[in-house]
Amino acid sequence: MADQHEVFEAGAASLAVPSLRWEEPPEGPVLVLLDQTRLPAEEAELVCTDVPALVQAIRTLAVRGAPLLGIAGAYGVALAAARGFDVDDAAEALAHARPTAVNLGYGVRRAAAAYRAAAAGGAGAEAAAAAALAEARAVHAEDAEASKRMAAHGLALLGELLPGGGHRILTHCNTGALVSGGEGTALAVALAAHRAGDLRRLWVDETRPLLQGARLTAYEAARTGMPYTVLADGAAGSLFAAGEVDAVLIGADRIAADGAVANKVGSYPLAVLAGYHHIPFVVVAPTSTVDLATEEGADIEVEQRPGHEVTEFPVPYVRGAGAEAGAGTAVAPLGAQAYNPAFDVTPPELVTAIVTEAGVVSPVTRDGLAAMCSTSRWSKSRSGNGMMAE
Amino acid sequence: MADQHEVFEAGAASLAVPSLRWEEPPEGPVLVLLDQTRLPAEEAELVCTDVPALVQAIRTLAVRGAPLLGIAGAYGVALAAARGFDVDDAAEALAHARPTAVNLGYGVRRAAAAYRAAAAGGAGAEAAAAAALAEARAVHAEDAEASKRMAAHGLALLGELLPGGGHRILTHCNTGALVSGGEGTALAVALAAHRAGDLRRLWVDETRPLLQGARLTAYEAARTGMPYTVLADGAAGSLFAAGEVDAVLIGADRIAADGAVANKVGSYPLAVLAGYHHIPFVVVAPTSTVDLATEEGADIEVEQRPGHEVTEFPVPYVRGAGAEAGAGTAVAPLGAQAYNPAFDVTPPELVTAIVTEAGVVSPVTRDGLAAMCSTSRWSKSRSGNGMMAE
Repeated sequence: MADQHEVFEAGAASLAVPSLRWEEPPEGPVLVLLDQTRLPAEEAELVCTDVPALVQAIRTLAVRGAPLLGIAGAYGVALAAARGFDVDDAAEALAHARPTAVNLGYGVRRAAAAYRAAAAGGAGAEAAAAAALAEARAVHAEDAEASKRMAAHGLALLGELLPGGGHRILTHCNTGALVSGGEGTALAVALAAHRAGDLRRLWVDETRPLLQGARLTAYEAARTGMPYTVLADGAAGSLFAAGEVDAVLIGADRIAADGAVANKVGSYPLAVLAGYHHIPFVVVAPTSTVDLATEEGADIEVEQRPGHEVTEFPVPYVRGAGAEAGAGTAVAPLGAQAYNPAFDVTPPELVTAIVTEAGVVSPVTRDGLAAMCSTSRWSKSRSGNGMMAE
Repeated sequence: MADQHEVFEAGAASLAVPSLRWEEPPEGPVLVLLDQTRLPAEEAELVCTDVPALVQAIRTLAVRGAPLLGIAGAYGVALAAARGFDVDDAAEALAHARPTAVNLGYGVRRAAAAYRAAAAGGAGAEAAAAAALAEARAVHAEDAEASKRMAAHGLALLGELLPGGGHRILTHCNTGALVSGGEGTALAVALAAHRAGDLRRLWVDETRPLLQGARLTAYEAARTGMPYTVLADGAAGSLFAAGEVDAVLIGADRIAADGAVANKVGSYPLAVLAGYHHIPFVVVAPTSTVDLATEEGADIEVEQRPGHEVTEFPVPYVRGAGAEAGAGTAVAPLGAQAYNPAFDVTPPELVTAIVTEAGVVSPVTRDGLAAMCSTSRWSKSRSGNGMMAE
């Protein structure tokens, strides 16, 4: 359990409750999640005793964010193994719970491969389950370590791009300790700038439809003492026009081999605005988010989510009633159709830099990205496990 | 009353209840408003017996939209006059109820000037009040007529810009019968395209923070049978990237002499996206929205609205509890600051065309705009009343 506790400490400065933890009560192992749909109103935990419960938690976004999905997927495989369920079925269900974040499948495959390798090596069910859990803990710990490195690389990049200090950073969605074994991706860089005395203002896009910015990033910013201001997504244009944004920092759910970035819907309009105003647009994500098997942005599958997320106000996110149609307050006429892609894709030419734990790629090119991934400490374990042969 | 009923008929096809009407019950004249904060959940009316009530209705957006604000302002002056209140005080309070929409002051000044002219000509209080009311009715009727002309000019322009028909039009905020004595501005053009069989899809930005798109434009689109789809404002980028938008049509709250357009916040990002994707960005507004006394976009005062419109979900808009802080459901941590400009300003180089009742200016130039305004039927009455000497 020592490793596990060490991992949690990394996020302890910003979260009262860790976003995810493995527990082993007498009645059997469980995965305990901080239910992100109930934040900021309450810090409620969700206890998953099996994979269907975890898949449901992933689909309703109780657990969310690319790096955390990888960690959750790995622990989910370990949970199935420890409880004696079929590991292949579990891995299959988890890997397809959401289509866009590549990290989910990455974490699932690592834990499943560890389980299979142990079993193939003659280990019994219990030992193979232990191997899966150890791998999940490794994914968790590596993410915390990656988070630290991304923060350091990102802070150095900001220093180069904005030598004057006093950064005013615009961010979208939530990319902090809530989505990570550590302090996150883009928000970890903003937090590092804050600790260095270089963050003048964090502009937080509310991030419709599910308000991860207003609910989650603002929650983390408040906890860590960052000077922050929330805004409607459409108001970002006014900030750019007024010269109030020095850089945009966002995370990623999948980065194609050409450097195209799939991230929360609303990221691409920010990239176009940043380009128009000559403001750096920086993507921060671990190399596990880079999917060299996806040639370009157009090949990325974008998850389409239910229209009621747009046409009903998600009161359930506060009340904890679950994200079901009809559970919210209607804000559009009965029967209104909605277009609700969860992500959009920003082409590499609009991305100033991609920051990973292995370093910074800028300008963003196919070769630069491939070279960085090949030097990452995980590229070997990934290719060793056949992870890139998806 | 004949004129008044004629005016209402123009909007009857799309609204069950007119957005505004003058009534004279035995206890004294009143201005009856359709409370737009309660739509689409209920069609409730708000009865204003004095100017302070009307000012409150304007500030809380129970009555809203540039052209309708002009009409409401004019009737407000008539109401003060008919009820024996000080007309100068009433005009002053109404003209400053909201700062950005130029039409509000325009309507107020026309009714006040009519009142003063009648009084200066020796008319008694009752006759002067009748003159103010007649002028308000004229403003109302002219807006209905302007709406028809804008729809015709806009439809012709779409035919030129998009000769293939089957238009997929993206719009922002609400610009239909709810804001007009007729069928509105940008939405009137979309409706004309629909009637001509040329509207394939109306994409409706939900328009945060107050959701005028999801609540009001969708309501009008549903009533008139337009094929429409609501989306989160940040998802518009995905539509452009997918080639699903043929033109953007928006209204305006003030157009400066150089052609810069102040409109609902979120309009400027659409203009930048449209420019990036080479899609026409068309502004539809009556010439009463053009303010030749404002030299350029930077001179337009942009109303800053309370942060709770962003940090709390406006459940009151559904429940009718009024737009007061604390009345909604918090979606951000307690004490979260918000940046909440009501409008943004789009520079003329991003505007493909401005459509008014007097015709179309394209490309948008200072001279072209001035020439069009000088030919408008109202420019004479405005300059005759000293309307432009603000």
